[in-house]
Amino acid sequence: MTNGKLILVRHGQSTWNKSNQFTGWVDVDLTEQGVAEAVNAGKLLQEKDVLPDVVYTSLLRRAIRTANITLNAADRHWIPVVRNWRLNERHYGKLQGLDKAQIREEFGEEQFMIWRRSYGTPPPEIDPDNEYSQTGDPRYFNLPEVPRTECLKDVVERFVPYFTDNILPRAQKGENVMLAAHGNSLRALVKYLDDISDDEIAGLNIPTGMPLIYEIAADGSVVNPGGTYLDPEAAEAGAAAVASQGSKQ
Amino acid sequence: MTNGKLILVRHGQSTWNKSNQFTGWVDVDLTEQGVAEAVNAGKLLQEKDVLPDVVYTSLLRRAIRTANITLNAADRHWIPVVRNWRLNERHYGKLQGLDKAQIREEFGEEQFMIWRRSYGTPPPEIDPDNEYSQTGDPRYFNLPEVPRTECLKDVVERFVPYFTDNILPRAQKGENVMLAAHGNSLRALVKYLDDISDDEIAGLNIPTGMPLIYEIAADGSVVNPGGTYLDPEAAEAGAAAVASQGSKQ
Repeated sequence: MTNGKLILVRHGQSTWNKSNQFTGWVDVDLTEQGVAEAVNAGKLLQEKDVLPDVVYTSLLRRAIRTANITLNAADRHWIPVVRNWRLNERHYGKLQGLDKAQIREEFGEEQFMIWRRSYGTPPPEIDPDNEYSQTGDPRYFNLPEVPRTECLKDVVERFVPYFTDNILPRAQKGENVMLAAHGNSLRALVKYLDDISDDEIAGLNIPTGMPLIYEIAADGSVVNPGGTYLDPEAAEAGAAAVASQGSKQ
Repeated sequence: MTNGKLILVRHGQSTWNKSNQFTGWVDVDLTEQGVAEAVNAGKLLQEKDVLPDVVYTSLLRRAIRTANITLNAADRHWIPVVRNWRLNERHYGKLQGLDKAQIREEFGEEQFMIWRRSYGTPPPEIDPDNEYSQTGDPRYFNLPEVPRTECLKDVVERFVPYFTDNILPRAQKGENVMLAAHGNSLRALVKYLDDISDDEIAGLNIPTGMPLIYEIAADGSVVNPGGTYLDPEAAEAGAAAVASQGSKQ
């Protein structure tokens, strides 16, 4: 049996990636560039013959559209899809909607990086009345409580058990499972797959629209630690661009 | 409890609707007009507050994209989706890919209407080597045998039991279930819902991109026989356009 694969795809550029705002659970759309990135990801999957058998997405438009567009371009639009809030981006609390460069300037580099990259410290909670709060959003009706902020540790705790219960077993059985998700939900996953420490995960950046492949053995172990980008050169340039977000270039 | 609803949406105009070719299981795309129809359908659902809780689609691109675009426009892109071949269009056999007007001219009006609308007589089987055959298509790997032609009776037999087992119970429990499907799979369903005879179903035409609502009681019966179009005037004009297909205007 051929080993199954995890195909990690961070959604293409969103309107708030472009305008440099903290997004989190706010349901912004892809930009035209984001759409083009998703098309390219799909063509790459087809060209390299890495064809998904099933796709998991978050409940957010930018990941759902990335999945739809990528699969359509790869001629795999017909595979089963599972949508679950556990793949959502990290909830950015009170920062949602705010300008990254402005926050950096107002609170300083150290506080900015703690909110952005610390493993265990979440930003301040968003007020339920804030226009960018998700309290009352019908898509989360089955949650006991809609998050008001999250740190990366919270994302690991809500996503990794779902992953090991539902997604990993499919790859162990030889399926290719695509995950169309977000910068921080994919960082949470990669932390688990590559056993990255709480400190070291801060330095990991995942570029948008670049399929990252983990090959999974039948026992659930990763065959290629660190994963393999289908287009390594483009991925390196993309990761550098993510790392520099919030700087006032 | 509010009654559940079935929301039937025939995919928007496809490239072969436009070029007047028999399509069946050939996986053609939407035209720009088809995309616009899907957007309008979604806006109408939102405006009339008929919001789907779950969507079923066929395995064909034109229905899948219609579902994606409609839901995105209705802000319901995040609901669960189920894709199943049993919602596919009728397989048009050897006619797939051929020009409707040409077939009508070559074989005469009577034969043309038998192939197009007779309940029990399928067109001749397509050759597995024909470029428009689906034999070997990976999306049908779990079928014992990929169809080589179908009449409407075949569609009823493959789709209605799936509907009563999987879809109807959800509406009975009060869910709004959207079905993004095809002219003939929806005709098969409407035949069942409205108990239309084998002869009379020939006269029924379903327009593209017009949400048709059936309200379902807890016992599974239809509350509004014949269904209700969300935009009745547009639907009437659309059905007349379908009926005239194949004529050489």
